[in-house]
Amino acid sequence: MTTIKNRDLAVFALGGLDEIGKNMYVVEYKKEIIIIDSGIKFPGDELFGIDYVIPNYTYLIENKERIKGLFITHGHEDHIGGIPFLLKEINIPIYAGKLALELIKEKLKEHGLFGKVKLYEIEENKVVPFKEVAIDFFKTTHSTPDSYGIVVKTPIGNIVHTGDFKFDLTPIGNMANLSKIADIGKEGVHCLLSDSTNSEIPGFSMSEMEISKSIHELFNQLTGRIIFATFASNMYRFKQAIDVAVINKRKIVVLGRSLVRAVRIGQELGYIKIPDDTLINPSEMRNYPDDKILIICTGSQGEQFAALSRMADKRHPQVSIGKDDTVIFSSSPIPGNAISINRIIDKLSRSGARVIHHKLRKIHTSGHGAQEELKLMLTLLKPTFFVPIHGEYRMLKKHVDLANECGVPYDHSFILDNGQILEMNQDHAKVTGSVPANPVYVDGQGIGDIGTIVLRDRKTLSGSGILLTLITIDKTTKTIVSGPEVITRGFVFMRESGELLNNISNLVDKTVTSSLQAGDMKWSSLKNSISDVIGPYIYKETKRKPMILPIIMEVRS
Amino acid sequence: MTTIKNRDLAVFALGGLDEIGKNMYVVEYKKEIIIIDSGIKFPGDELFGIDYVIPNYTYLIENKERIKGLFITHGHEDHIGGIPFLLKEINIPIYAGKLALELIKEKLKEHGLFGKVKLYEIEENKVVPFKEVAIDFFKTTHSTPDSYGIVVKTPIGNIVHTGDFKFDLTPIGNMANLSKIADIGKEGVHCLLSDSTNSEIPGFSMSEMEISKSIHELFNQLTGRIIFATFASNMYRFKQAIDVAVINKRKIVVLGRSLVRAVRIGQELGYIKIPDDTLINPSEMRNYPDDKILIICTGSQGEQFAALSRMADKRHPQVSIGKDDTVIFSSSPIPGNAISINRIIDKLSRSGARVIHHKLRKIHTSGHGAQEELKLMLTLLKPTFFVPIHGEYRMLKKHVDLANECGVPYDHSFILDNGQILEMNQDHAKVTGSVPANPVYVDGQGIGDIGTIVLRDRKTLSGSGILLTLITIDKTTKTIVSGPEVITRGFVFMRESGELLNNISNLVDKTVTSSLQAGDMKWSSLKNSISDVIGPYIYKETKRKPMILPIIMEVRS
Repeated sequence: MTTIKNRDLAVFALGGLDEIGKNMYVVEYKKEIIIIDSGIKFPGDELFGIDYVIPNYTYLIENKERIKGLFITHGHEDHIGGIPFLLKEINIPIYAGKLALELIKEKLKEHGLFGKVKLYEIEENKVVPFKEVAIDFFKTTHSTPDSYGIVVKTPIGNIVHTGDFKFDLTPIGNMANLSKIADIGKEGVHCLLSDSTNSEIPGFSMSEMEISKSIHELFNQLTGRIIFATFASNMYRFKQAIDVAVINKRKIVVLGRSLVRAVRIGQELGYIKIPDDTLINPSEMRNYPDDKILIICTGSQGEQFAALSRMADKRHPQVSIGKDDTVIFSSSPIPGNAISINRIIDKLSRSGARVIHHKLRKIHTSGHGAQEELKLMLTLLKPTFFVPIHGEYRMLKKHVDLANECGVPYDHSFILDNGQILEMNQDHAKVTGSVPANPVYVDGQGIGDIGTIVLRDRKTLSGSGILLTLITIDKTTKTIVSGPEVITRGFVFMRESGELLNNISNLVDKTVTSSLQAGDMKWSSLKNSISDVIGPYIYKETKRKPMILPIIMEVRS
Repeated sequence: MTTIKNRDLAVFALGGLDEIGKNMYVVEYKKEIIIIDSGIKFPGDELFGIDYVIPNYTYLIENKERIKGLFITHGHEDHIGGIPFLLKEINIPIYAGKLALELIKEKLKEHGLFGKVKLYEIEENKVVPFKEVAIDFFKTTHSTPDSYGIVVKTPIGNIVHTGDFKFDLTPIGNMANLSKIADIGKEGVHCLLSDSTNSEIPGFSMSEMEISKSIHELFNQLTGRIIFATFASNMYRFKQAIDVAVINKRKIVVLGRSLVRAVRIGQELGYIKIPDDTLINPSEMRNYPDDKILIICTGSQGEQFAALSRMADKRHPQVSIGKDDTVIFSSSPIPGNAISINRIIDKLSRSGARVIHHKLRKIHTSGHGAQEELKLMLTLLKPTFFVPIHGEYRMLKKHVDLANECGVPYDHSFILDNGQILEMNQDHAKVTGSVPANPVYVDGQGIGDIGTIVLRDRKTLSGSGILLTLITIDKTTKTIVSGPEVITRGFVFMRESGELLNNISNLVDKTVTSSLQAGDMKWSSLKNSISDVIGPYIYKETKRKPMILPIIMEVRS
């Protein structure tokens, strides 16, 4: 394992570079380690059966005595979802904003970890001091309250991590603290790590105020029931739908476990205010006319098990969609979800509902800043060195171009890979090595027990299924005493492929018999012979390549 | 099977409705059947291992004596790809435009069908007469030459099928025959079937002339090698790249089997003109400086085995991408492909190449008309009845709204499902029944031998793999003589899961032994007991649900 030697100040990522997800950044000054965020990533289609991907924590485990704390920028899963997995390995104090802290507490309770970890609330004007470094914070605007940028103050200079941010001059919640950001810039930024998600998008992102106007207009116009689909993570968005429903005297039904929780926490913390008797249970809907009901639900990304998908499939126990319903998608498709979303829109339309999505109305805006906002951050902070974070490669690259336009020379910008260590002194910055930062797969209870072989097997199985040949051999008489039997799953209809399977069985019989006669009693070579004979035959006959699994059982007479 | 009785005029689709792909439409007048197009569809991710999807041809097979011919609107796979599969069932004459006919001939040669089928070339002014109906054609603009709309003239009235179309007033190839379309409208259109692909897109699609300008500008500016990625099906697009390369004296390398064929056919038919010595082999590239080379290749949709993907992965034998290369994506992502395309852009950027795609430049336009073009077609043709085709449900629905804006009353428009029969007389139209139109899956050599059970198995296998328990039982002594052995694929690393697999094996042993002692010698119930015991145990321990396959071999002592 690579370790960092002879370094004073170093920065690296364990996740979040060349990807959207599992954000985890590390700032080291001498003997002190500061961790920023601990996220998960949701797997793509090629990771068959995997539930989440988390970073490799090896370096942190091996250096746990030096860790001063985990600092959380905001409470989204790609920034806090990894916390239970991390805490199972090392017990470290966590610092987070009010809302994120509440979400983390619920997570810890679920995993039986609550009470075992020190939790501290971040406040903008309360610096957290350690021996060598000190941590300061500045408020940012994102799609969730209590989002912070983090400043790691070191004797060499300030390391600034923006968290996820946009600039919204007419936001729903708090505005970013422009004046504090400007002050930090005046004080001097040695290295900036900044959110690159929308670095390819020209201009300035739409204000949440525009969305607010659309919601007001729509709710005023619509006469039937409204189904408002959005993310449980976007508190400002569902807050707006709730606020307008309250004005229009609609009763509110919340569907989806994560959304129910988010609304509850939002109420507890005072971000969301709902008058008594306004929030109703699904079963109470029948007591009110359609035009007095707003349903807020999850599933705007086409998630298979979410409320909206079940409504579209007519599988929802409480809501059946009809021609008086309007479904609003207050979201835009994440790449990879377009097909599922379109399918849900099709099904809802078929049921007669009117469907409104971001292409038809100003009903969604991103929580991440576009190019002019990224340039505003760069201009306010004027960093000496720059590391674009939170983005796929082309986004990081584009962000470096923007930084260059704002005066950061190309040789002061570093597109890092996860794990690559950027070491710095007063004048220089250089990549000096790396720590392990491979993705770790979580599948059910298993963490890291799934590797490329298992995934490759799942891919083969998914494409053409499996074909087993079974044979029992008497080791004493060197004869086949049972089989060959051929069993398939996911390959062909067994019933209708009798001839093919018969031929395969005969081929196995011939191969094994002649091997046994030749004295070959080594099962591994026997299995190889079977695969070598039937694989090509199956491909010739079917143009398919199922996984072939020859099985030999042995008995002694 | 449903048949159409007592009908004079009927229209239905065997594919193409509520989907993009496998277009196949049928017009019947009394005893004459006209088929329009015979396409395939490429499967979505949920169709594990399936190569193509084709329509159910049962109705056509059962009524083959009445079929007068298959008329092809244009030569794209979703309109001609199904021809070999159809011709294996019924031998019918095919009518197609010049380019489509050439592509069909190559297809027939590949499948050993050439010479066995009557082929006729469509010409715009040559009506094809049958006893009751006659077929007329009008030129349209699409992304490929020789695209036609088709008019089925019947005693009740004209049925018009637009094919895929846009209106481009500064096209690269032929302009749509506006005057003939207007004349057909004047003569009267009883029922219009019109392309709905872009019915959700406002305005008028960008002209191919704009793309031409961008290509000219880019090729003039760029100093290094140019890699131009597009579709083999978009002859006008690669023609433009070729034309500009010829002007700029770049040598041209064509990569990708389908593209090489398309360029050859384009040259044979005179659509593409390349001076001698301009087209070179990949191996000759090294003889020329980078700024004298244009590579045209496939793979702009992120296709895994296409030339571009291999370049991005540094797996291409002849082309290695570097910092002097510019890669142009002359395409826009089809939903579902965004992630693969982004990944390729990331890899190309990492290799140092400049990447230009449709978000950054006017480098792609659709071959399908947007709302104003659809309205122009509706206005020119003024149909009595309207059936939106070639689109997913929400597109068909939107198209009906557009038709309404153009004067077609809602009750004269019909959103059909594949298979639904729209029967018409002089004054009325009505859905009267349906023919089988389920999707048929092609997997390797197998057509229709894959059904929901096999697909469900592939899905289970893809998610958590398979776990086999093997046991050999002596039928005479009622004892286990070999096993239980536990084998897994795609479930866990077998090496590192020894304890789990041991426990499973012990559970199987206990279950089988006690069943045998109780006298249960019925293998099926024994297998069920095994699954019932180990399934819940595995889920409890791993939170995974692999396919469980208990196998019992028997011997007699």
